[in-house]
Amino acid sequence: MFSLKPILGITMGDPAGIGPEIAVKAFYNQHIYELCRPVVIGDAATLKKAVSIVGGELRIRPVSSIGAASFHPGTMDVYDLQNVDQKKLRPGVVSPMAGNAAFQAVTSAINLALKKEIDGTVTCPLNKEALNLAGHHFAGHTEIYAHFTASKDSVMLLVAEGLKVAHVSTHVSLREACDRVKKDRVLRVMALLNDACKKLGVARPRIGVAGLNPHAGENGLFGWEEEQELVPAIQQAKKDGLLVEGPVPPDTVFTKARGGQYDAVVAMYHDQGHIPVKLVGFRLDEKTGEWQSVSGVNITLGIPIIRTSVDHGTAFDIAGKGIAMEESLIQAIEFAAKMASL
Amino acid sequence: MFSLKPILGITMGDPAGIGPEIAVKAFYNQHIYELCRPVVIGDAATLKKAVSIVGGELRIRPVSSIGAASFHPGTMDVYDLQNVDQKKLRPGVVSPMAGNAAFQAVTSAINLALKKEIDGTVTCPLNKEALNLAGHHFAGHTEIYAHFTASKDSVMLLVAEGLKVAHVSTHVSLREACDRVKKDRVLRVMALLNDACKKLGVARPRIGVAGLNPHAGENGLFGWEEEQELVPAIQQAKKDGLLVEGPVPPDTVFTKARGGQYDAVVAMYHDQGHIPVKLVGFRLDEKTGEWQSVSGVNITLGIPIIRTSVDHGTAFDIAGKGIAMEESLIQAIEFAAKMASL
Repeated sequence: MFSLKPILGITMGDPAGIGPEIAVKAFYNQHIYELCRPVVIGDAATLKKAVSIVGGELRIRPVSSIGAASFHPGTMDVYDLQNVDQKKLRPGVVSPMAGNAAFQAVTSAINLALKKEIDGTVTCPLNKEALNLAGHHFAGHTEIYAHFTASKDSVMLLVAEGLKVAHVSTHVSLREACDRVKKDRVLRVMALLNDACKKLGVARPRIGVAGLNPHAGENGLFGWEEEQELVPAIQQAKKDGLLVEGPVPPDTVFTKARGGQYDAVVAMYHDQGHIPVKLVGFRLDEKTGEWQSVSGVNITLGIPIIRTSVDHGTAFDIAGKGIAMEESLIQAIEFAAKMASL
Repeated sequence: MFSLKPILGITMGDPAGIGPEIAVKAFYNQHIYELCRPVVIGDAATLKKAVSIVGGELRIRPVSSIGAASFHPGTMDVYDLQNVDQKKLRPGVVSPMAGNAAFQAVTSAINLALKKEIDGTVTCPLNKEALNLAGHHFAGHTEIYAHFTASKDSVMLLVAEGLKVAHVSTHVSLREACDRVKKDRVLRVMALLNDACKKLGVARPRIGVAGLNPHAGENGLFGWEEEQELVPAIQQAKKDGLLVEGPVPPDTVFTKARGGQYDAVVAMYHDQGHIPVKLVGFRLDEKTGEWQSVSGVNITLGIPIIRTSVDHGTAFDIAGKGIAMEESLIQAIEFAAKMASL
C-alpha cells in the first residue's frame, strides 16, 4: 500500500536557523518513510550544507516538480527553490535573503497543497525579523497560511506529552485576549478541536473548556466572561452533540487532562495553553542551560489544508553546530501523516 | 537541642472537610516531631473522631494553653477550642458551625503567633461558603491573615516540585490582574520572594520575572506592561542588588526554573503561576479520576507571622473516608519549620 501514503511537503524554514539541520536529522529516521512520502521544500544547496554539518550520509536530490520525487529512504527529495546564496549565508544571523527563502518555501508549500500536489505541509521554524526585513509583513507562519488560504478564523492546536490544547486567541495582548473570549469564537474552537481529535484517532473526544479567570470566575466573583460567554457556548456545544465540560478552573484543567479526564482542552489565551504544554514538552539541561528536549507540535486548524509545525524557534544560538534536536519535527511529521491519512 | 525546635500551630481547617484526617495522618509521621514542636489548633473531639476514621493509634491530648503542650511523639496536643458539636457535624456538608470552627482556629492561631506563643502557623483547608454562612466575610485564609495582622500587601508564594512562584495578584479577574501589574507592587513581590528564598536556604536567589503578555509583549507588539512597568521594576531591583532577569516569556520561564536556571519565578497573575505549580504537583489517577498526589505548599509573604498552608481544598467529596493524603500538609509543616528556624 506504498502508494497510499500521504505526500508531505516539509518546509526548510529559515536557512540561517536550525531548520535544515533538523530536516536532515529527521530524514535519517527511517520511520518517517513508513508514515509518508516526504519531500522538503526549500533550497537544495542549503540542505547539502546541512548534511555536511550534521554528518552522516544522505543524498540530496533536487526536483522541480513533486511528480519527479522518488521518495527513497536514504534520499531527500528537495523541491528546489534555488533561493539561497551559500556565499552570503551566515548561520545564526538574521538576513533578508534568509527571510525571503523561508517565506518562499512556505508559500510554495501552501500552493502545492492547495493544488493537491501534496497532501499536507509541515513547517520548520522561520525568523519573524528576517521575514519582515525581506518585506513580508506577517507575524509568523499562521498568518501566512491564513492569508494565502483566505482563512479568517484559524485556531492554534498545541500537542505535547498527552496534552492537546486549542487556543481561543494567541498573539495578542492579555487585555485583548480577554476581549476575544466570545461565544461564537469559543464554539468554533470547540468544533475544530473536536474534529481534529477525531482525525488524530479519538472517536468521541472529551473536551475540557478552561475558564478565563481564576477559579473559572468563582461564580462571577472574579469576572463575568464565564457566565456571559463560556456557559452559553458550552451549552450550545452540548446540544450539538459534543462531549464538553466547563468552564473548568484553569489551574486544574490541564492536570485533569493529563490524568485522562479530558482528551483535549480549550485554552482561552496564548499562555494559558502554552505554559502547560511547554512545561511537559520542554526540558532544560541543568548543567549546560541548553534545551535537552523540545517535544511538541503546533497544528493549524480552520484552514483548508493540513499544516503541522515544530513547537520551537529558529534557535540561532545553536544554528550551524549540528546539535539541534529533530524530535519535534518528527512528531510534526507523524501528526501531519495521521491527519492526511484519514 | 530539643527546646530550639520551633512551635508550630496547625489549624484543623473545616471540621467537615479532610483537615482533621490529614492532621492525624501527618502526626503518624515521626518526621514532623524532628522538625518542630507541633500543636493542633481546633476541636479535640473532632480530632478524636478523625483518629477513628483514619485508624491507628494517636493520643489526642486537649490543652488550654501552649505552655501545657507536651510535644510527645504518639500524642497530638490540641489547643482545644471545643467548638464543634459532634452530633451535628456531617462530613462533606457545608455548615455555619463548621465554618465558624474553622474561622476560630485560624484567628486563634494568628493571635498565638502575634503573641509569640507559637513560632509559626500551618493551615488546613477551610470552606469559603461555610465561612461566609457563619458570618465571617472573607475570601479565604489569606484575607483573614491580612485583616488580623493588619497587613495590606501580602504575597502568595506557591512551592511544588522544584518550582517557587510568587504572585503579583491572585483572586481577581484577569482584566483586573492586568491593571495590578505595577512597578511598585512587582518590586515588593521580588523583594519578598528574595527574602523567602533566603529563608528557605538559597543564599543568592536567581529570580526570573515572567512577562504579562505572550512572548513578554514581543517588544511592545502585544502589550505595553512589560516596557512601562516590568522593565523599570527589574532595573530597580538589580540596582538593589537582586539577581533578577526578565521579563521572560511566560511560556518558557517555568520550564527554565525547573531546569535550574532560576531559583524562583515572579508570576503576574493567579493562573500564570498556579497552572505550572499544579501541573507538576498534582496527579490524577487515570482509573478512579481521583487525585493520586497533591503536593505543593502555599506560603503567605508580607505578613508579620509565618504562615504556610496545604495547596488543596476541603475535598468534601472524600471527607470522612480516611483516604485523603497528608503529603501537602507535611510539606507545609516542613516549610514553616524551616522558615521559623532561621
